[in-house]
Amino acid sequence: MKELSGEQVLLRILLGESDRQDGKPTYQAIVEMLRREKISGVTVLRGITGYGAHSHPHTANILRLSQDLPIIIEVVDSQETIERVLPQIEQAVHGGLITMEKVRVIKYIGEK
Amino acid sequence: MKELSGEQVLLRILLGESDRQDGKPTYQAIVEMLRREKISGVTVLRGITGYGAHSHPHTANILRLSQDLPIIIEVVDSQETIERVLPQIEQAVHGGLITMEKVRVIKYIGEK
Amino acid sequence: MKELSGEQVLLRILLGESDRQDGKPTYQAIVEMLRREKISGVTVLRGITGYGAHSHPHTANILRLSQDLPIIIEVVDSQETIERVLPQIEQAVHGGLITMEKVRVIKYIGEK
Repeated sequence: MKELSGEQVLLRILLGESDRQDGKPTYQAIVEMLRREKISGVTVLRGITGYGAHSHPHTANILRLSQDLPIIIEVVDSQETIERVLPQIEQAVHGGLITMEKVRVIKYIGEK
Repeated sequence: MKELSGEQVLLRILLGESDRQDGKPTYQAIVEMLRREKISGVTVLRGITGYGAHSHPHTANILRLSQDLPIIIEVVDSQETIERVLPQIEQAVHGGLITMEKVRVIKYIGEK
Repeated sequence: MKELSGEQVLLRILLGESDRQDGKPTYQAIVEMLRREKISGVTVLRGITGYGAHSHPHTANILRLSQDLPIIIEVVDSQETIERVLPQIEQAVHGGLITMEKVRVIKYIGEK
């Protein structure tokens, strides 16, 4: 079981729900890659509306967005581990936003 | 196309889904204002429950909240740009919470 | 009415939707505890997929996760207040992740 404590990194990836890679949603491909790379945990959130980097170029209308909702993928891990998987994430994201924040891990109870 | 990199600001606005402004949801009015102001991207999340600043004064019961779910509006942009639109956001939010965090933008791929 | 401004703490608790405590969802038990403890506001988000600390040990398959979706509980309050309730939160979370981040409160408009 992996241990996580103290200063770590929260990585957030924002992309569009309809983005595809090899016939599957890009966000799903990223989650599977992170799992293969033994990243300790991943959470995926879906927004209800939005616009911007994650949305398609022809998205002039806010209503149109209901078909391409924003997806946020969140990962908390060490700086070192995050940097190891970052190139694969950058390669997968063709329209979106990738950010890092410092977080303090108070408690981590992994898969038993 | 706008460029974003390095140290930027994550602005988060927490309000209630049922808050209204000029007959439309306040969160939608804020998203439209941010778009008019050329903010590069906005993501809106809806919570499944909660209580607090975003909820109405008569919300004594946690079940009642299903009719006024929490909404989080997220924007990542420069400190300068965020501060430019902040007065309009503050004016629109009549019950809620507005926070800022520092984030490091690793990659931003905007609308082509 | 409580006041919040300047440097505060964003506490995030990640756990599984199917986690139970005394016959109710753990996330609901935590929200009720925070309310009893007069924490000013709480927001609960539900992810659409994920894996890790919040998921059950037998979750080998990503599809299985649809039955145990990730839940994120968010609280913004003072360091002191957060630390007061932290032991009760730690006791309630049996698989998950608890993190803290610094945030700057720009505006807080509480229950009138």
